[in-house]
Amino acid sequence: MSATLFTHCTLFPGAYAAVIDDAFILVEANSIAAIGPMAQAPPPSTARVVDVRGKLVMPGLVNAHTHCAMTLFRGMADDLALHTWLHDHIFPAEARCISPEMVYWSTKLAAAELILSGTTCVADAYFFSAMSGQALSDCGLRAVIGHGIVDFSVPSVPDPAKNVDTVATFIAEWQGKDPLITPAVFAHSPYTCSPATLTKSCRLAEKTGVRFFVHLAESRSEMDMVIDPQGTSPVRHLAALGLLGKNTVCVHGVWLDDDDLELVARSGSQVVTCPQSNMKLASGIARVPDMLRHGITVGLGTDGCASNNSLDMFREMDMLAKIQKVAGGDATSLPAQTALHSATTGGAAVLGLPHLGRLETGFRADLIVLHLDRPHLTPFYHPDLLVYAAGGADVDTVMVDGRILMAGRRILSFDVEEAKARVRELARTAQPAS
Amino acid sequence: MSATLFTHCTLFPGAYAAVIDDAFILVEANSIAAIGPMAQAPPPSTARVVDVRGKLVMPGLVNAHTHCAMTLFRGMADDLALHTWLHDHIFPAEARCISPEMVYWSTKLAAAELILSGTTCVADAYFFSAMSGQALSDCGLRAVIGHGIVDFSVPSVPDPAKNVDTVATFIAEWQGKDPLITPAVFAHSPYTCSPATLTKSCRLAEKTGVRFFVHLAESRSEMDMVIDPQGTSPVRHLAALGLLGKNTVCVHGVWLDDDDLELVARSGSQVVTCPQSNMKLASGIARVPDMLRHGITVGLGTDGCASNNSLDMFREMDMLAKIQKVAGGDATSLPAQTALHSATTGGAAVLGLPHLGRLETGFRADLIVLHLDRPHLTPFYHPDLLVYAAGGADVDTVMVDGRILMAGRRILSFDVEEAKARVRELARTAQPAS
Repeated sequence: MSATLFTHCTLFPGAYAAVIDDAFILVEANSIAAIGPMAQAPPPSTARVVDVRGKLVMPGLVNAHTHCAMTLFRGMADDLALHTWLHDHIFPAEARCISPEMVYWSTKLAAAELILSGTTCVADAYFFSAMSGQALSDCGLRAVIGHGIVDFSVPSVPDPAKNVDTVATFIAEWQGKDPLITPAVFAHSPYTCSPATLTKSCRLAEKTGVRFFVHLAESRSEMDMVIDPQGTSPVRHLAALGLLGKNTVCVHGVWLDDDDLELVARSGSQVVTCPQSNMKLASGIARVPDMLRHGITVGLGTDGCASNNSLDMFREMDMLAKIQKVAGGDATSLPAQTALHSATTGGAAVLGLPHLGRLETGFRADLIVLHLDRPHLTPFYHPDLLVYAAGGADVDTVMVDGRILMAGRRILSFDVEEAKARVRELARTAQPAS
Repeated sequence: MSATLFTHCTLFPGAYAAVIDDAFILVEANSIAAIGPMAQAPPPSTARVVDVRGKLVMPGLVNAHTHCAMTLFRGMADDLALHTWLHDHIFPAEARCISPEMVYWSTKLAAAELILSGTTCVADAYFFSAMSGQALSDCGLRAVIGHGIVDFSVPSVPDPAKNVDTVATFIAEWQGKDPLITPAVFAHSPYTCSPATLTKSCRLAEKTGVRFFVHLAESRSEMDMVIDPQGTSPVRHLAALGLLGKNTVCVHGVWLDDDDLELVARSGSQVVTCPQSNMKLASGIARVPDMLRHGITVGLGTDGCASNNSLDMFREMDMLAKIQKVAGGDATSLPAQTALHSATTGGAAVLGLPHLGRLETGFRADLIVLHLDRPHLTPFYHPDLLVYAAGGADVDTVMVDGRILMAGRRILSFDVEEAKARVRELARTAQPAS
């Protein structure tokens, strides 16, 4: 059994925890076997010893919603409202570009960015998901992969009548294939899926025991025009169909009124908030402090990097804490530690992954090592700086499930140069002829 | 005369400009002597040649408002409202800690962070400003240094009756001392300076031909309680005293009504917006698009890193663009290029520094070189990515006034390790006994 002993680290075990100045972490196989002050460290014995003096070790970040393959569309259409962005730019680009090859290489490029910025677990939502699964599996990341469902023809499912069946095949293929990869269902939204499709999608998720993701109440225009002329809300639309429940993940949840919050909380559904995407598309500001007061589990996601345009979860935590403060006119409304929680334990709970998000004995060895000895992290009075000053570029080493994927900022698990070169090639044909 | 020839760069000459794929820049002494496509490059002759293939060259960023020495207080008091933060934490910490030595070393630490994240010109506002001046001069940065004025005793001016005279001495000492350092007046705010002090400060600035900075209309509490029970606004307060004008820089300007905007615009005063600080302290969201529509010159600042907590102007540009979009419910309301403008040309105009903020012949050679060959900047369809995906850590090389301050992320102009060590020592006594 392979073992790694990290010695002399500054240890931040997870959100709300105190920092331990000189600590050790013993990793055996894929889990944390022991952790604590250096004075209590076991003798190195057969473990590989990694001295991380002057560096901080913390849980790997959980990106609870993104569309990995959209790296190909990053920066292709900025400064546009959601509807224009989606219908005039992104949907046409997808119709032109999506292929198994595109999904594989663009997802690998996303994996490089995720690892380089300290994300160890990602929830993906796209098409040709077997290719996303293969790419993330090849890169060594932990992932929940929701196969996309819409009611129109897409390159991965030309006949929309087969949309849910295609996902059933994907789930059957990937359940148990790689312990790090968990399949899921991703119904795009109530404005691209009929009530029948939404229902069939949710039932498939229930039957197979996987998560049911849906973009919900993202923009005001979704509220105004799409759902129901009688004025029901997207949440009530889902609730009326019987699709809220412990298995359901509402992505965005920007436009929730008090009744919606109550419905989501009572159903046990979870929410993923994507503040940067919601800001950049001018969609709005989710009521995250109210969600937390209602006891709703909230994860944090970057959304796809065509609408953000970054997969750096440090940036996202910073944005979440700051936007909520100014939105509520209250500098205490979403503290740094709450942002850290949503980016670790919160996200893990949303994804239904136990033993993730904190560094303690018995938990999975998904951890990141950061440089502390940098001007922008000096002095280091408090781990709140991880939210307000640190960035993905401060990450030095990344371990997922006991395996080191990056050391000294060099990715060890796959060939990043190849991924960049392949996506650059794809980019040559991705832009519309002007 | 020393000369540097940058060859084979991806050139981004400045906000709103198109990218040139294979370009050269010839720097002679402190200015750009020639710039254009590689095909037109002069023979290298006596110039030192720097091949920057695969990298992007753009104007150095202008941080139009910060308090450099507050690096010592970074992360000491987070998640607090402005009034509590300032009066219960920052003012007491300053009373305990400010000394010439503290200002010198903490400013040098700020300089390291500024250079590492691509800022070439900074507007500082603090106390013991001769020490800030010396520190920034020793580091090779371009700077405008506003010496602080308040109506209470501070370590640098124990007798507040001498506050303006102290600044007069500072200006006399620093005018013409170092061509890169420009002194200025910084009256802290209308709630810490009496009308007489504000007036005396502004007149000193006019008489000596320097900028007059003032924190103005930062928070709603400043509006409600401080100025005038008759309900005038901070802007009208200044206008009534005759202190608005081309020389005046209103820092923050969060709470401006339509009349205020009109007054600022007509007077020719400029504004510096500090979105992250305003968000973190829950101060509010400045009406930047309205300011621009009124023709007001707007610069961008990080504010001190006790209230942000970062000096990375890339982060600040991203935040400016995103917060304005969501605040106005309009994804087109503040495009990436407008954010870039405020962080370059806009800031330079606010500070009254000509020939800065763009890369063109005759302009100062203040430029930065970024790595483009990174997963998070791939593909690179458009320079908007500099706002939405790039970060300070992507900067490889920094040149100020024709002198290379950093190359390969190694700072050449001063000893960063010494600055970090000195500030860590100061930090040991900076926190209150608990």
